[in-house]
Amino acid sequence: VQRCALGLIGWGTVGGGVLDLLARDGAVIRQRCGLDLAVTRIVTRDPGRARTQSAAGATVGTDLRLILDDPAIGTVIHLVGGTDVARDICLACIAAGKHVVTANKAMLAVHGDAIFAAAAAKGVGIAFEAAVAGAIPVIAAVRDGLVASRITGISAILNGTCNYILTRMEVDELSYTDALAEAQRLGYAEADPTIDVDGTDTAHKLALLARIAFTARITMADIRIEGIQNISFQDIESARTMGARIKLIAAARQRPEGLELRVAPTLVPYEHPLADVSRNFNGIHIDSVAAGATLLVGQGAGALPTASAVLADVVDVVTGRYQLTSSRFNFFTTTAPLRLLPETEEVTSSYARFQVPDKPGILAGITNLLSQHGVSVQSIHQGQPDDRQCATIEVVTHPLPGGSFLTAIEAIDRQGLTIKPTVTLRRL
Amino acid sequence: VQRCALGLIGWGTVGGGVLDLLARDGAVIRQRCGLDLAVTRIVTRDPGRARTQSAAGATVGTDLRLILDDPAIGTVIHLVGGTDVARDICLACIAAGKHVVTANKAMLAVHGDAIFAAAAAKGVGIAFEAAVAGAIPVIAAVRDGLVASRITGISAILNGTCNYILTRMEVDELSYTDALAEAQRLGYAEADPTIDVDGTDTAHKLALLARIAFTARITMADIRIEGIQNISFQDIESARTMGARIKLIAAARQRPEGLELRVAPTLVPYEHPLADVSRNFNGIHIDSVAAGATLLVGQGAGALPTASAVLADVVDVVTGRYQLTSSRFNFFTTTAPLRLLPETEEVTSSYARFQVPDKPGILAGITNLLSQHGVSVQSIHQGQPDDRQCATIEVVTHPLPGGSFLTAIEAIDRQGLTIKPTVTLRRL
Repeated sequence: VQRCALGLIGWGTVGGGVLDLLARDGAVIRQRCGLDLAVTRIVTRDPGRARTQSAAGATVGTDLRLILDDPAIGTVIHLVGGTDVARDICLACIAAGKHVVTANKAMLAVHGDAIFAAAAAKGVGIAFEAAVAGAIPVIAAVRDGLVASRITGISAILNGTCNYILTRMEVDELSYTDALAEAQRLGYAEADPTIDVDGTDTAHKLALLARIAFTARITMADIRIEGIQNISFQDIESARTMGARIKLIAAARQRPEGLELRVAPTLVPYEHPLADVSRNFNGIHIDSVAAGATLLVGQGAGALPTASAVLADVVDVVTGRYQLTSSRFNFFTTTAPLRLLPETEEVTSSYARFQVPDKPGILAGITNLLSQHGVSVQSIHQGQPDDRQCATIEVVTHPLPGGSFLTAIEAIDRQGLTIKPTVTLRRL
Repeated sequence: VQRCALGLIGWGTVGGGVLDLLARDGAVIRQRCGLDLAVTRIVTRDPGRARTQSAAGATVGTDLRLILDDPAIGTVIHLVGGTDVARDICLACIAAGKHVVTANKAMLAVHGDAIFAAAAAKGVGIAFEAAVAGAIPVIAAVRDGLVASRITGISAILNGTCNYILTRMEVDELSYTDALAEAQRLGYAEADPTIDVDGTDTAHKLALLARIAFTARITMADIRIEGIQNISFQDIESARTMGARIKLIAAARQRPEGLELRVAPTLVPYEHPLADVSRNFNGIHIDSVAAGATLLVGQGAGALPTASAVLADVVDVVTGRYQLTSSRFNFFTTTAPLRLLPETEEVTSSYARFQVPDKPGILAGITNLLSQHGVSVQSIHQGQPDDRQCATIEVVTHPLPGGSFLTAIEAIDRQGLTIKPTVTLRRL
């Protein structure tokens, strides 16, 4: 048994999970691969945390040097949130020659280029399995398991908060506000849930997955992002009548003309495997040429699931395997120019819900404009008018370039055929 | 870009897939990790294969020495079927100091101890991601991704032939014979499908998965095996009325009293994630303490999916990572005694279908005997008698020790309450 001293920076939920998991089940790692992992030093903003959880003999302090200056520590578990401060701490660890295991997707999505370059220059590894989809080993699956299989598309549910809210809205008919409050009560959503519900967190994870899948330098500006804040119960109901569920889907698709990257609420037909990924679970559906379709589902967040992924990375680093990965794989430092597909060239099936006045000629006017813009309609449904003489017309299109669809919708709204801005959704 | 010369032993379906994948998409591996993989020597029983597929410049022969004596070849792709001859070839590769990548689960399940020991002594790696669930990176997920998470149970669909047959029987109401013939026509089943349909192939894969998950020496004798040969359309119909599908499930479960290992046709309730793994897909559902539930689904067989896993292993070996895995993980050479749970101590929910004469007192007789043996009934259903005065009684039990259930069934059959041997199934 080989003893490994680890430094831990950040003693929040996940940091607590790491200590908890080592204390409770560290014997599993010892049994499997003869490594005795021990957190020997903890740096935290709030040393008072030691009042609620045992540090298991680790020295606790607030000064980063506690870890940086300890030559016994070769690997640092970096669990600092946010972007800029987290990056500074990460770069300090690299400069001190420490390998870094992090769960911080925001930091890597925004500052990955600088961090990976610094790590490559110093010859240390930045491991981040825990940053995407928690306990699901999706980074390893995309990077190693599918290394020989050209990936053509990824569709993924990567935010448990959004998935929980959407599931509760659908299954229990809660309002968005009530579902969000419930998610917060259960610890699935932060006190400030903004970057979860507005799609930013999902986009951070998509940036990392796509970077590996396509060996491409992806910035946040490359991803079109829509959140779930405006999803109404009526959207959920409309989806149901069409045999689909609304999920916040991160999508990356390699087309001959370029790469398409998007985070958006999306109609997922019941028969698609991601439709059954419910509550706080995450799911990743990968299409690749040789391997065909691969689906991974599991716990995407939470103290122990994330700690599981963090410690898996620690084992990868401590055995020396991750350094071989770092020195070999090109996605860390690629500068290959990326050809992104503009929204107008995306080819997807879409859904629109028009709120229209209940008077003659409206349906004809809408179908005319759709046809003029080359939008091929798959199905159309007109509801009964309500007591304010307002009716709903729902349209699902065949797959077509996004540009035509969006222009058609704009024209319809502009011509006064609708009484509210039209709601649109992608369809998987 | 680093060029790597590979030897290939066995030029069948998967060997052809490896050559095909390298020819078609070898650029993907080059782009991702700068490795230029090339099969330079092929040893095959039938060099005539070169008439139907290009060897891409490789030297083709029938003598193993062609590969063993080539110092440029450090890694051998071993795609020889069967057990004993395959083992001899594998040991010869090891003796020659070659790393081995194999898709042969039968060989490793039966001769794994000898092969892993020889490889450890020689300092080479035996990589076998392709041996279990084809393109799905489940070996890596269990070994590395979940290294920190104590695995408590695995339930898996590991044989595409059986899953295809059962799906066609259910969805298209084909007979077992017709579904098998269809599977053979599509290349999902071998000309001799025995080891697929009798559960042996699934057990080979379970032995390997359980070895890794529980760091235990598993032999084929440790696994109780039932196949799908006797599954009738009536079984499928009964499952449907109970909201379940029949799947051939490989199950490993760690209980305080011991490890339970089993391959058997099993009722999988619709709401279980494995119920939706249909046709020729494989699926693995893993319960572990820290990571919770994890599900992996994908293509478990076929030329390109298996080749994808083979080449992923080749990359792992050629980068040197796999040697670090081999030298570190204990499952390769563990001799820890394994405490297996006897069938009588297994705790599962079960199903029985009694064929009974249509006369008074039979139902009472059956429920009496079940009760006397401590079998707690969850539901009971008695069908209308057919025109031969034969009726069907179906019983689902609450979870209970397997011994009580089997003894009760035996007593019922022995007392002449039934007119045919009773059909029993496990319930997931």
